[in-house]
Amino acid sequence: MSKIKNLILLLPSSLLEDCSDNLTKTIKVGLIARALSIFKINNITIYNTQEKKANKNSIFIKTILDYMDTPQYLRKILFPLKDELKNAGLLSPLETPHHKRMVEWKKIKTGEVRQGVIVKKDKRYSYADVGLEKLIPIPNLKLPINKRLNIKIKIEKKSLSGSIVSDPDEYWGYKTIISNDNLIETLKKMAPDLIIGTSKYGELITDIYEVLSRNLDMNTKIAIVFGSPYTGIYKIVKNKNEINDIFNYLINFIPNQSTRTIRTEESIFITLGIINFLISK
Amino acid sequence: MSKIKNLILLLPSSLLEDCSDNLTKTIKVGLIARALSIFKINNITIYNTQEKKANKNSIFIKTILDYMDTPQYLRKILFPLKDELKNAGLLSPLETPHHKRMVEWKKIKTGEVRQGVIVKKDKRYSYADVGLEKLIPIPNLKLPINKRLNIKIKIEKKSLSGSIVSDPDEYWGYKTIISNDNLIETLKKMAPDLIIGTSKYGELITDIYEVLSRNLDMNTKIAIVFGSPYTGIYKIVKNKNEINDIFNYLINFIPNQSTRTIRTEESIFITLGIINFLISK
Repeated sequence: MSKIKNLILLLPSSLLEDCSDNLTKTIKVGLIARALSIFKINNITIYNTQEKKANKNSIFIKTILDYMDTPQYLRKILFPLKDELKNAGLLSPLETPHHKRMVEWKKIKTGEVRQGVIVKKDKRYSYADVGLEKLIPIPNLKLPINKRLNIKIKIEKKSLSGSIVSDPDEYWGYKTIISNDNLIETLKKMAPDLIIGTSKYGELITDIYEVLSRNLDMNTKIAIVFGSPYTGIYKIVKNKNEINDIFNYLINFIPNQSTRTIRTEESIFITLGIINFLISK
Repeated sequence: MSKIKNLILLLPSSLLEDCSDNLTKTIKVGLIARALSIFKINNITIYNTQEKKANKNSIFIKTILDYMDTPQYLRKILFPLKDELKNAGLLSPLETPHHKRMVEWKKIKTGEVRQGVIVKKDKRYSYADVGLEKLIPIPNLKLPINKRLNIKIKIEKKSLSGSIVSDPDEYWGYKTIISNDNLIETLKKMAPDLIIGTSKYGELITDIYEVLSRNLDMNTKIAIVFGSPYTGIYKIVKNKNEINDIFNYLINFIPNQSTRTIRTEESIFITLGIINFLISK
């Protein structure tokens, strides 16, 4: 989707209520991470649906999403063995621009930005692992150990050094945060320009796509909200007035569906595919 | 999608070349089966991409697709333990109209159509298992054992009997066939009204959706072709003229994608989501 958009996906803490084990939970979140990357989603907020283990559920979702957003060469450093990640080996890589491949030392170009973490320090340098054969020395001594940073590589007299830079212009992955508030409170604090909810009881996309297209064009901070597998947005927000007050749209993106339900990971691919089409038009 | 359309999906025998084990293969085909059902695809043809084990690969895909299209109560009868199905327990049910739920004997309504198989015969009746507490007697004695049939239930004097009927008007699942021909030959024999290929090197959907919409409207037998994970349609069909001759469209449905590749199961959800939107418009 367009570079200048800030696309935020809101997912419920109860997202995994239809999964009975770690494997199926991992597969579901892994598919969602792929969809986020394909369509250049910048931020994910997990809102609290007040079930018994809401916080634990949110942490599981965030852990898998964070893990997938991390370049493969940094995963061992940043993710010590965790129960949540026991099936993570199965997950497909994101293959986004911020997940650089291993290349030969000689083939690095000056100006290349790679994600890395500081793994050691001496009196003159901090040293970053950026997924190359050797560590990159950075003359800045105040950098924290084990924090993920963007490192711009400079070649001088055949030796490589690095400096810290902010995110480049191309798509650079997503950030996931956990909200302790319910959906309505979360949206109020977030204050997006445009809020789109997805529901099979919503307006048909075929009826409103023209005005939606114009709204997508004219607004930047766009929130797209998904409900829970067993509890759609209309049930999560009991008060109908609150829905009408805060949502710009509640949309059924899948007219004439023939299955009784659509799973959230399926709906995310379909919904983002259509929104991407409308934004790119 | 619209009831009067005959939507055919073409998948390569090499569909699973990016999966290393039975589990990931099963998950991929399972997701595709869900997409087929959500969007009311009627027919799937697996075309031959001439890899070493093309036929074995096609049989694996067909076995999982057939298994998923079968109502849960008939799976044990129709699918003896097979190596292909060792992870099938993980698959999400289709929840389509032809997968009826178990209901109490008393709550059956006359005229209901359920899929069943003949499991025994006596001198006067064939008996079908239709996923109810008791078998349904059918006075037709020529019915083959273990063949899936549509059985219409009739209640007379508190006893139930059945008769064989053709597919009802609502979406009634899909049929999968294996073609031994390559893609071009398969398409020539199939002779659809409209052939749409998917490729990231194709025309952008945003550039041609208006004329595509009209073509979708005016044609009935519509083929949608997907390539292999490592070999897109432009590589599968080496001769460019053949592509130009036979395809009405080669379309990139995902403008501005930010991942290096899109997996076939992901592309199927996105592509069918947009085609469904255009057909329903």
